[in-house]
Amino acid sequence: MSETVSDMGEFGLINRIHGLIEKEGVLARGIKIGIGDDSASFQPPKGYELLVTCDSMVEGRHYLPKYISPLALGRRAMVSNLSDIGAMGGTPLYALVSLGLKESALVTDVEALYRGFLAELRSFGASIIGGNLTKSEDNTFIDITLIGKVKEGKCLRRSTAKPGDVIMVTGFPGQASAGLQCLLHGESTVDPEKHPLVKAYLEPSHRAREGKAIAESGFATAMIDTSDGFLGDLGHICEKSSVGASIVAEKLPVSEDLRQAALEAGRTPYDLVLQDSDDYELIITCSSSHVDQIRHFLTTISDVAVTEVGRITEPASGINLILPNDTKRDITNAGWDHFRRREGKNV
Amino acid sequence: MSETVSDMGEFGLINRIHGLIEKEGVLARGIKIGIGDDSASFQPPKGYELLVTCDSMVEGRHYLPKYISPLALGRRAMVSNLSDIGAMGGTPLYALVSLGLKESALVTDVEALYRGFLAELRSFGASIIGGNLTKSEDNTFIDITLIGKVKEGKCLRRSTAKPGDVIMVTGFPGQASAGLQCLLHGESTVDPEKHPLVKAYLEPSHRAREGKAIAESGFATAMIDTSDGFLGDLGHICEKSSVGASIVAEKLPVSEDLRQAALEAGRTPYDLVLQDSDDYELIITCSSSHVDQIRHFLTTISDVAVTEVGRITEPASGINLILPNDTKRDITNAGWDHFRRREGKNV
Repeated sequence: MSETVSDMGEFGLINRIHGLIEKEGVLARGIKIGIGDDSASFQPPKGYELLVTCDSMVEGRHYLPKYISPLALGRRAMVSNLSDIGAMGGTPLYALVSLGLKESALVTDVEALYRGFLAELRSFGASIIGGNLTKSEDNTFIDITLIGKVKEGKCLRRSTAKPGDVIMVTGFPGQASAGLQCLLHGESTVDPEKHPLVKAYLEPSHRAREGKAIAESGFATAMIDTSDGFLGDLGHICEKSSVGASIVAEKLPVSEDLRQAALEAGRTPYDLVLQDSDDYELIITCSSSHVDQIRHFLTTISDVAVTEVGRITEPASGINLILPNDTKRDITNAGWDHFRRREGKNV
Repeated sequence: MSETVSDMGEFGLINRIHGLIEKEGVLARGIKIGIGDDSASFQPPKGYELLVTCDSMVEGRHYLPKYISPLALGRRAMVSNLSDIGAMGGTPLYALVSLGLKESALVTDVEALYRGFLAELRSFGASIIGGNLTKSEDNTFIDITLIGKVKEGKCLRRSTAKPGDVIMVTGFPGQASAGLQCLLHGESTVDPEKHPLVKAYLEPSHRAREGKAIAESGFATAMIDTSDGFLGDLGHICEKSSVGASIVAEKLPVSEDLRQAALEAGRTPYDLVLQDSDDYELIITCSSSHVDQIRHFLTTISDVAVTEVGRITEPASGINLILPNDTKRDITNAGWDHFRRREGKNV
């Protein structure tokens, strides 16, 4: 009934997972050798560059098992990688999943985790072609490498924003992180899973399709996802592009739910949008004359909101937030850092 | 003097590592975007399939910091991946390194780890093009994804051995594991690092170049590396090829050092060769008429020993060890399993 990975053994578990992937995954194009040999092998598609990214989730650091099911965790872990491929303008192809599992982990939970991975890959015709399973004494970890493709010359970088460019953002960053706070600190009388912010955490969106459309439009100058928080990732654009940025607080997309959550947490809604890092939205920069074209390209594939929030500036200006009273706040170094905890970040 | 990753912060550490890779790594061919964006990007080489593998090392499970320096650990972690690419007949191209680090980890130790990775990649003209750094509360983990290339149609699998094939093995499997046992249980009066078995553990070999030469010769029927131990990996060949195997105990390559270590540990030398899993040698199968050709191809690039140790048999036979007194021992299920501990395996 509740068989553990230790009961089943490494090779039994590998066979079980292999069977699940064959049955429930899609047969991605180009694979010559999938799971089950020293390496996987594939035929690279012609006319494309290959993209490759990896991202980890560590128990106790990036998630708490009490608050997220294995299925939702699998989806979230894969979404973080899909988002990275999309932020370059690419399409996901193949994933490798490396897990560190406790001996006591339930086989059914490991299967649910893989179902989460596959659920996110399936709609791209992408699949899992390899990976690694190992025992980890204290913390479970999930490390995913995702390979994608992007049409030659269509890759969008973070290092190519120009002073004068408009800064846009998709969706409503900060929602997922606020949802996590609801789970951690919310009143137990409310069913947290029905809360829209909690849903944003447990079923995170990514903008991989939107990213590809924006890159192929040729109208954006730079792009990045918000996995380090809006401000952290805007900081990456500014550093790598050697530019500054000016963000207008009142233009930031704040949903009614987030406004309410900010009120309850005694924080300004801007902080929640700018600083927290559990959403996978896109920051896009482009010339002001191309904003409409980008919006047009997006509307053909997506109904995601796109909000103009500020401008790229000369590097000496740093990153500034223009407050409603027209004062400037220097927020150059206020982004999230994974090795330095800040208040309000519990996981 | 002894700055920790927590002192330096995530982005500071990323910049430091990025600088180290640029300075001490090689500029691998085909890279369009290296470290520093949401994904790396490269131009796939024409006429090749791409190979991809990943392998993890977890502190306390795969290594103990007391017994291995960060530099040697970095080399060992990369070797395990180089070995997987070589076992398919490929050449390493690009690595992605994902680390889970404790807040207290020293920046200099993380740098030494990367120097270990780069030392192994350098001679292939291969480099690190991406990765991930995250905080891990209790155990450090290293997860490496390695991308390689193999000439179209030249990939060697584990699933294609045929009854009647000769089984060969490179080098002296079991040495590294015996070396680890020396470190763990050896007398402190002897300098363990001067012991050849300890050296085999701390500076493990791989046969990536040999694997490529064997694959390109076209004379081998199947190949695998011995990362799960000789018997574990022979078991993989048998399972995937639907064959059995017969191994002649007296033919197994046992070095004088290993014979001595077995005597001291009260184990038969065969057990050490067959069961332990810290070496990265190759098991090769081929028709008996091609043994000389494979030896010939190997001598042009390597002086590694290649030993004929048995034959592939019909599947119903299972895996048998022929003992010196001509009795057979069924060893079909005696391979190493990472989730099931055995006696004598301390890490």
